[in-house]
Order: sequence, then C-alpha cells, then structure tokens
Amino acid sequence: MSAAQEQRPRYAASALREVAAALFQAHGTPAGKAAVMAEVLVESDLMGHVTHGLGLLPRYLDEIDAGLMRVEGEPEIIADRGACATWDGRGLPGGWLTMKALDLATERARVHGTCTIAIGNSHHIGCLAVYPARAAAAGMVCVLHSSAPGTASVAPFGARQAVLSPDPVSVGYPTGPAGADLPVVTDISASITTNNMSQRLTRLGQRFPHPWLLDAEGNPSDDPSLIGKGGTILPAGGLDHGQKGYAMALATEALTQGLSGHGRADKPSGMMASVFLQVLDPAAFAGLEAFTRQTGHTAAACRAAAPRPGQPPVRLPGERGLKLREEALARGVPLAEGIMAALQPRAERHGIPLPGPLGH
Amino acid sequence: MSAAQEQRPRYAASALREVAAALFQAHGTPAGKAAVMAEVLVESDLMGHVTHGLGLLPRYLDEIDAGLMRVEGEPEIIADRGACATWDGRGLPGGWLTMKALDLATERARVHGTCTIAIGNSHHIGCLAVYPARAAAAGMVCVLHSSAPGTASVAPFGARQAVLSPDPVSVGYPTGPAGADLPVVTDISASITTNNMSQRLTRLGQRFPHPWLLDAEGNPSDDPSLIGKGGTILPAGGLDHGQKGYAMALATEALTQGLSGHGRADKPSGMMASVFLQVLDPAAFAGLEAFTRQTGHTAAACRAAAPRPGQPPVRLPGERGLKLREEALARGVPLAEGIMAALQPRAERHGIPLPGPLGH
Repeated sequence: MSAAQEQRPRYAASALREVAAALFQAHGTPAGKAAVMAEVLVESDLMGHVTHGLGLLPRYLDEIDAGLMRVEGEPEIIADRGACATWDGRGLPGGWLTMKALDLATERARVHGTCTIAIGNSHHIGCLAVYPARAAAAGMVCVLHSSAPGTASVAPFGARQAVLSPDPVSVGYPTGPAGADLPVVTDISASITTNNMSQRLTRLGQRFPHPWLLDAEGNPSDDPSLIGKGGTILPAGGLDHGQKGYAMALATEALTQGLSGHGRADKPSGMMASVFLQVLDPAAFAGLEAFTRQTGHTAAACRAAAPRPGQPPVRLPGERGLKLREEALARGVPLAEGIMAALQPRAERHGIPLPGPLGH
Repeated sequence: MSAAQEQRPRYAASALREVAAALFQAHGTPAGKAAVMAEVLVESDLMGHVTHGLGLLPRYLDEIDAGLMRVEGEPEIIADRGACATWDGRGLPGGWLTMKALDLATERARVHGTCTIAIGNSHHIGCLAVYPARAAAAGMVCVLHSSAPGTASVAPFGARQAVLSPDPVSVGYPTGPAGADLPVVTDISASITTNNMSQRLTRLGQRFPHPWLLDAEGNPSDDPSLIGKGGTILPAGGLDHGQKGYAMALATEALTQGLSGHGRADKPSGMMASVFLQVLDPAAFAGLEAFTRQTGHTAAACRAAAPRPGQPPVRLPGERGLKLREEALARGVPLAEGIMAALQPRAERHGIPLPGPLGH
C-alpha cells in the first residue's frame, strides 16, 4: 500500500453501503436492487479498484435520471436450457444483473456441473473481479467476460482504427479449502490499457509509461488524450505480439455479444454491456479436493519462484486486492480522494447523512 | 504464401492421411485411432501449422514404441453429469481423445446448450486450432485450453524461474451461414513464444526478433537456446505488461489440470497434456442467426479497419490458415522440408510406400 493510500481517511464498509443504497433509492431504485448495487460498488473499493467503486456512483445516478439505466422490473428470459440461459438485461443495473446471474449459475452448476448465462443489453457491470472472487470463495470456478458494444477504442492488430472495446475477462478459482487460502482472481483486459485509465491520466495531465496507444495516423504514442481524438489503444502484446490481445478481444466479443444476440450490429450507445458468465463446480469434475491439490501446488510454486533482479516476491493475480479487502474490512475502506466530495451535493439534496471517517 | 512455400512439392491430403494411418497401425495402433490421428496431423499441415503436423509423427511413433503413448482401450470416465464429463486419458493419443471429446461435446451441446469435457493424462494433442475450426464450421462455438504439466518453461510475471507451460487456448466461432463465411479461429499461447519455436530457431541458429526470453539470472534475451539452460519464456505482454500472460496461463492450468485432477502436483513427465474442451451451441442461446449477425458484423468491421502505415489489410485470426487449407485441399499440401525424409526409413522398414508429389 502506498503512503498516499495509507494516509487516506477510512470509512466503515457498512456505512458506505448504506449511503450508496440510500442514494440509489433516492433516485428511484427499489430497495433490493439498491442494496446489491451498493454492495458491488463497495466490494470494488474494498479491493482497491478505485476506478470502479463508489467513484462510479454519481455517473450511475445520472444514468438513472437520464433514463439510460432502468431500475424497475426483471430481465427478459430469451432462452433457458437449465445448464445455460440467455437474458435481455433491458438496461437494468449491471451489477445487480450480474450478481443475480452469478447466484443462479452457482445454484445450477451444483446440479448440472456448469451453468452459463449470456446477458445482452445490460447496463455497466463495474469491476469484473468482484463476481469470480465471490464464486471462488464458495469453492466454484467462474469465468466472466464483458464487452461494451456502445464504444470502440481498441484497434485490431495491424490497424489504426478502433473496432473493439478493452473486452476484459476475469477468472476466479479456489486454491485450497474454503477460508484457508486466498483464491486466484485474474482480471485482465484484451487491450494494453483501458478507456478509464486513459481518461484518468488525461485528467491528471500524465502520460503512459510506454507507447500503449496509436495516434489517428497509426503512430505509437504515450499520450492518453489521443482517445477521443481518433487515437486507439493497442491490443495486449502491442506492436510486438498484439495478435494475442486481438484474438482475446474477438473471443470475448463473440461470447458476450454473439451468444446474447446484443452487440455492435445494433449500434448501441453509452454504458451498455454484453456479458458472459460461467460457473463450473469442481465437485462435478474430479472433485474439489483434486482441483485444489493442483491449483494449490501451482500457486505455491509461483510464489516460491525466484524474482527477477530488483523485483519483489512473486504475487498471484488478485492477491493484492484480496489482502487489501481483508485489511479494509478490519480497519475501514481508504476511499480515494474526491469520492466523498462528489457524493456530498447529492446526499445533501436528498437529506442523506454522509458517514464520517473512522477514528477521527 | 512465401516463395519457399510456393516451391515446395505438394502431396494429396488423402495420400498423406493414408501413409500416416499405415505408420500408426504398423506401430500397433488400432485402425480407428490410427485414422483419426492421421487426420488430426494432416489437418495441421493443411492449415500451414508445420510444427504440429506430420513433423510430429516420428516423435509420436517413438512414444508408442517407448510405451509412453498408449494405443489400446478407452479413456476412464471419472465423472459424468451430461453437461460435463471428466476423463482420465490413460496416456492415449491426444488427437484421438480430443476429437472424441469434441464429437461427444458437440452432440451433448445440442441437448444441454453447452458441454464441457476435462481430460487429464492425455498424450500430446497437437495443433489446438484443428478442433475449434471443425466445431465452428458446424455452427458451434468451441473453447479449448491445453497445458503440459510435464514441462515448465514460462516464468510467472516478475520471476526468473519457470513454473508454467505456454498454456495455449483456441476459440472458434462462426461468422455467417455454414459454408458462406470463414469462421474465426484464434490460437494463442499465454507466453510470448513457445518451446517448439525456441527449439526450431535453436536448430536454425537464429534469434528471436525481440528479447522474448530471460536468461537464468532474469535478464532479457533473444537467444532461443537459453531454454534448457535455465532460461525462461516471458509471459505474453513481456516485461511491459506480462501480468496478462501470467493470468492467462494460470487460468488455463486451473481449467485443464484442476478440473481434470491431473497436473503438476503429480509431477508427470514428457508429452502429457491436460485438456479443457467446451462446446456451446448458439441455438441454445439467442440463436445462430442472432449470433452470426453480431460476429459477422464485427468481423467485417475488423477487415475494413484502415491498416497502420505500411501494414497489409487487417486479417481475422485463423483466416490465413483456413485459406491455406482450402488451397491445399484443391492443389495439394505443400509439406515443409524434411518431413518426408524423416518418414522414409520408418515407411521402408514396414514396407509402406510413400506417396510422390503431385504433378511431378
């Protein structure tokens, strides 16, 4: 944890959930959906993913007010075969839809061994890692892909025009008995960097550490402000081996937009997402113990691998976030700068008291 | 196609299949398995994947002779829930096992919507793209992961010791009505390059175009001969963003070795593979037409994207291989140098006539 993070005021996670749920409700969201959305956003802050936590809340509330995020009703069931289902998300809150899909897929995976749910027309689903982390803590494997067919910022390998989105995928799985060992939770985009990171660095007047973008003419650049001015983000692997990120992005777009039937062909706009969520129950394969015997072994071998010169000990994907989460649950959530300030005018308007920092 | 490829002698695919099947049978493989193995290897040569075609045949025959590849019997069924199954491959030929799993998963996906098969203790499965390409041509989506728990050549991100294998994943899906449009078939490893490529360049006395390896001390290098001398292959993304390849590799090892229950914890050796094969039927989700409406749209947009300065038109993953395959089926397979020569002594020993090149 950086010194800046260490000095941030900390808030009780429960108090943050309460204020977020109250704000969602004040903007017309039914109590059940409001509580789940508050939980999903605070989970992101707990794991230190500050771009996808309560920092998103003002934007989500604006989307509700503009009628772009719907808050009433249920997803429409397009197809259901038991081991797989397809939903039209009808613009409903993505965190709520995805958590609902995770619960259903987990329940059904216990019967069928696996369950896959494709959701089209979902609103933004926030931080992907939240969902596989939860599944893995329950002894399940979870694969979650998301794409944003309303935006295009990533160029195919060899191109200088954007066609794809960062197209993240997150995978979570247990490495030992429940509660004993932290699960592995990967969360990577198919592009070198993301739209959110480009916007953030642009606001801060900073540059990327390497030329991770192309300008409109296709020349490499480290200038994040090129996004929105004809520039594009390079696929993972960059100019050197970007065929890998390009392949990952196409697979994610097919699984999310193809299976759900909602995607770029419909020319959607804004924060809409297409989602592919799959839960696999190790108990239906060789068994949970056989599973963690292998994954625990490999996780330990990674941790024990000698670091490169000058590098810290090797970490597992998700390890830092899950440790931050444990600490934040014990000591409070160190909210990133500006987040409470952004909630202040909205809370005041609705007469919702904001929590004070802990230990002050 | 390069001039060197254009000048290679071409052979009828059917004649290559016949000689490969005869050689497998001469080494004790039952006729059915021999025919499938021959088909899988020749499919790889048809798509131009020369490192995974008939070039592997001498090595496979040696493995049979050494008792490391078993040729009799069936996989042991460890678990079966209909929508998923787990096999102990018992060291049987990987191409035959994977093709058998693909056929079963395709049949079952038509009922359950998806079907997932985890195979442990399989022998080497060859070129991954062969299987998803076949599924996609039949209107299905296929996700195939493979890992080689008997070898370790890839270092975790930030480490200088090998723990993982290149851990490839291949995804195939249709982009239009059957026969009308080529499917997309991705085939990427989680490492920047592979063991096979390192061996090949070492034999040719060549170097990698960029520092894709680390030496035993963890310093970047382009010397392929470092593999086997304490060197490691960098994960995809390299020193710049290798957390992505590291995450991909761990996910692939969990899906293949964790679910099958066969992996590094058992300290296997040689060419053994753990496999995760999944087929998804778009008809069970939003429908095949809705699927290809999205994937066809995005494929066309990628092709139409303006190339970077000096770059050729943008291609789709698998496009080159599938076009080479069409040409090779029409004009013959341009076998890479040395492949017929390597088969010659074995064919002679068993009195199997080798085919001559076409049009000579």
